[in-house]
Amino acid sequence: MSKKVLIVGGVAGGAGTAARLRRLDETAEIIIFERGGYISFANCGLPYYISGVISKRDHLLVQTKEAMEARFNIDIRLHSEVTAIHRDTREVEVVSGDQNYRESYDYLVLSPGAAPIVPPIPGIEREGVYTLRNMADVDRLKTLVTQRKPRRAAVIGGGYIGIEMAENLKYLGSDVTIVEAAEQIMGPLDVEMARVVGKTLLDKGIEIILNDGVKSFDGQRNIEVILNSGRKVEADLVLLAVGVKPENKLARNVGLAIGERGGIKVNDYLCTSDPYIYALGDAIEVKDIVNGQPALIPLAGPANKQARIVADNIAGRKVKYKGSQGTSIIKVFDLTAANTGNNEKMLQLNGIPYVKSYTISPSHAAYYPGAIPMIVKIIFSPEGGTLLGAQIVGSDGVDKRIDLLATAIRMGLTVYELEELELAYAPPYSSAKDPVNMAGFTAANILKDDMRVMHWEELDSLAGDSYVLLDVRTDTERRQGHVEGSVHISVDSLRQRLDELPRDKKIVIYCKIGLRGYIAYRILVQNGFDAANLSGGYDIYQALHYQYGEAVNMNEQMTRQE
Amino acid sequence: MSKKVLIVGGVAGGAGTAARLRRLDETAEIIIFERGGYISFANCGLPYYISGVISKRDHLLVQTKEAMEARFNIDIRLHSEVTAIHRDTREVEVVSGDQNYRESYDYLVLSPGAAPIVPPIPGIEREGVYTLRNMADVDRLKTLVTQRKPRRAAVIGGGYIGIEMAENLKYLGSDVTIVEAAEQIMGPLDVEMARVVGKTLLDKGIEIILNDGVKSFDGQRNIEVILNSGRKVEADLVLLAVGVKPENKLARNVGLAIGERGGIKVNDYLCTSDPYIYALGDAIEVKDIVNGQPALIPLAGPANKQARIVADNIAGRKVKYKGSQGTSIIKVFDLTAANTGNNEKMLQLNGIPYVKSYTISPSHAAYYPGAIPMIVKIIFSPEGGTLLGAQIVGSDGVDKRIDLLATAIRMGLTVYELEELELAYAPPYSSAKDPVNMAGFTAANILKDDMRVMHWEELDSLAGDSYVLLDVRTDTERRQGHVEGSVHISVDSLRQRLDELPRDKKIVIYCKIGLRGYIAYRILVQNGFDAANLSGGYDIYQALHYQYGEAVNMNEQMTRQE
Repeated sequence: MSKKVLIVGGVAGGAGTAARLRRLDETAEIIIFERGGYISFANCGLPYYISGVISKRDHLLVQTKEAMEARFNIDIRLHSEVTAIHRDTREVEVVSGDQNYRESYDYLVLSPGAAPIVPPIPGIEREGVYTLRNMADVDRLKTLVTQRKPRRAAVIGGGYIGIEMAENLKYLGSDVTIVEAAEQIMGPLDVEMARVVGKTLLDKGIEIILNDGVKSFDGQRNIEVILNSGRKVEADLVLLAVGVKPENKLARNVGLAIGERGGIKVNDYLCTSDPYIYALGDAIEVKDIVNGQPALIPLAGPANKQARIVADNIAGRKVKYKGSQGTSIIKVFDLTAANTGNNEKMLQLNGIPYVKSYTISPSHAAYYPGAIPMIVKIIFSPEGGTLLGAQIVGSDGVDKRIDLLATAIRMGLTVYELEELELAYAPPYSSAKDPVNMAGFTAANILKDDMRVMHWEELDSLAGDSYVLLDVRTDTERRQGHVEGSVHISVDSLRQRLDELPRDKKIVIYCKIGLRGYIAYRILVQNGFDAANLSGGYDIYQALHYQYGEAVNMNEQMTRQE
Repeated sequence: MSKKVLIVGGVAGGAGTAARLRRLDETAEIIIFERGGYISFANCGLPYYISGVISKRDHLLVQTKEAMEARFNIDIRLHSEVTAIHRDTREVEVVSGDQNYRESYDYLVLSPGAAPIVPPIPGIEREGVYTLRNMADVDRLKTLVTQRKPRRAAVIGGGYIGIEMAENLKYLGSDVTIVEAAEQIMGPLDVEMARVVGKTLLDKGIEIILNDGVKSFDGQRNIEVILNSGRKVEADLVLLAVGVKPENKLARNVGLAIGERGGIKVNDYLCTSDPYIYALGDAIEVKDIVNGQPALIPLAGPANKQARIVADNIAGRKVKYKGSQGTSIIKVFDLTAANTGNNEKMLQLNGIPYVKSYTISPSHAAYYPGAIPMIVKIIFSPEGGTLLGAQIVGSDGVDKRIDLLATAIRMGLTVYELEELELAYAPPYSSAKDPVNMAGFTAANILKDDMRVMHWEELDSLAGDSYVLLDVRTDTERRQGHVEGSVHISVDSLRQRLDELPRDKKIVIYCKIGLRGYIAYRILVQNGFDAANLSGGYDIYQALHYQYGEAVNMNEQMTRQE
């Protein structure tokens, strides 16, 4: 007897489940209910259509109702909202226009997604305040920017969508201000990495206000965004991007288990607390594979993989979803920022011990034109060196390295295994020691105690008279900028000038990126000094102090690589 | 007591060993003997300096004698050739100019590299015939191209260096002919993938002659390259790039074990048959991690990793080198070709059973500008699905995917694990299902028998009346080109037209890239037909028939993705 499967939601998760299920089972009856007017649209492309980078609206419509119905023999019902579930009789109630009917199921799949958070701020319902989540949103916003060419735009929220919209509004010529209530933009990154992104936004003329929330939206013709601090931001357009929350109403109403974070609770097979109801995508809680805790990870990659697994399980195969790791990436003008696994904040919250290390490496061989440095931060277990998280900010080639590190985290690799990866090298693509190898070498040096590192923020905890800060860069680099109070002996003359350093104090070394500091460290400890190397060197110091943005001299950097 | 370590060869392997050893041991006496005039030059950058893509000769000199001596307290002796080893007394003989002396060692490191193969072809010694391996070679060649601007160039050998030089000579305005004795260029790739590269070279105006070797170099003022077939190629410049051979003379003369492929034999710790002599780099035989056999893999990545391990072992740490996999990549104008692990030829030679699969995926989301398709070929074990090899030809993003697959091979991952990788997705960088995921999905479908595939070359083994070739593409695609003798039913009307197909014959399906063919396959088998899907579809058919090069319609392609 053929199965009847109803699917709530026709974007990534729902459409993917339907297509896979059809391939596995030619006889199943499959109906998709989509509240909106479109299935399978390119959610992640919306900001780029606003600016015209994606030139045609049609490009956003990855799949249409008609094409999908023809190919997969699926009944797709648009503008159809499932308003209730009757678990006892296995039926749903559907509202479509003025129609209202019931449809029975053998299996029900919930893929309702997540909705933009709209806080109860006075004035938030007024014209000119937008969210961006679906085709209706994008059409409204596209009409506005086309017809009115907003001179000033305020983006509330400095996450992925906020920053992508800030960039695209800037392309359109608007003056853009990002308002972020937290102490940093780009929550998935740690603060020092986020600051590098922030610096790029500032360089491109985007204003960023941190640690300040919106109190109200006032004003007459234009919008006055009144902040908690009393500050006022004038705008012709406000884009609200303060996050999303799982659409759990339907599930909650019918008594399905909801997780502590508000997502629909599912087991390893993506089945809800009702054995006939599966759920997936932005609406569910998944297991974070690094810290083992439930997490909300509203990303398209996991949703697509979950779709295959839900279909497999409904088709009678037992397939587990092993969890998510939150791998994500964003283009910020000519910068790329990416992360995978846990950041420091998450590990601290979960009480998981970690070690971190920064390396700065060129995107490809420095002697070949176009090499651009990237800051690679990896976070790993002090026992055994298992990789726990990674963050990269740079330009070309960031995507490649974050994917390698994401794969390493998924497979439980250690930093020692990063050392051994045999990656493709030709001058236009990489170096003989890829940035990922370099991250591994450096981390392994730390764990094997071949190099003790310190981090800039740890300097504060040392008594000022207990250490000497030693700058081992060249005279030229020193002149261009240095940390106040440091002494200067270039690494190449260090062996000859050891007697200038005190043996009763810690020698805290820095160079530009940490490589020469490592060499200096080895010289000092083997000569009986107590030393430590500042991870990431002056580049990370600058990131922490918002001075980042000077061009890295790649020839210098590569010459210094061992 | 401090160790005295002599190193023969000052490029990647030797210089790397010296630097690492110094960091581990501040007191060791370290001497590098380099036959040439430079250490640590950018071997892989030489072709790009010839054309001026790398504008300055200095950029090739990654490290200089003076800088390295200052930083690492190493004694570097240029133009110094080690001509003999006395294992009994642990001494080497050195010739430098008219000097001739002995130097003793505790440990000796052999990193002499590989030398270009120069076959005994009549006329090969004449002016205008060049090899390209070191700074002296590059200076000679640069002078020639600068002063004489060769109108016609012949490149003998269609491997990496040959093709890179062909490209760079073309940039300089030369008419270039590649002469290759084998049936394909790009030996590390299988023939159908190499043909895609060949098509690009042809499109760029480079002539390729296959299956023909050089009989002699004749001619008066200009060179006449006389081929075995009798064909004659006129050239003002001949670049000989028929491969390299390990520099094993020194080792062989002193009775160190030499492997069957001519490389110096080393154990897992990179120690030769003499416990006081280590060897690394292009001169040694390594273990191929896929087939377990000894291999010559003259690449910079492995050499650099081996350098660390040799230094570690001499410093008293026991560290193993686990083997190489031959990950490599080449830029061919706007194309990128890459491979890792074993190709079909190698697996056949070693009697290792395998399954192969082709997928064709866009470099990033097709709806975002600039997406370019890549052909991903993966080769995996029929039992368990362990990845054995991968080859990719495309443009943007090929390097990322080959590195992911290289990591998968190194870590022994299966195609099922490729399905699960959570990679970074934003429209400019990838798709929600990355090309690597897609390769995994498809391979898993094959192994789980959800899809039976065939390959175009297997069609020949079927009796003509035993199967029907079914084209499931659109009318438009069909009109633009199809395989002779195929019947045409688009996938979207297949369910309605099943009775047009015979039930007593095999239905061999093709679409453009294999995705719609998979859907058609599922429809057919679930309706009782005996079917198979041609892996890689019409795109691979075209590659095999040298018609590749039409633009892939990415919107079409993505719409068809499930």
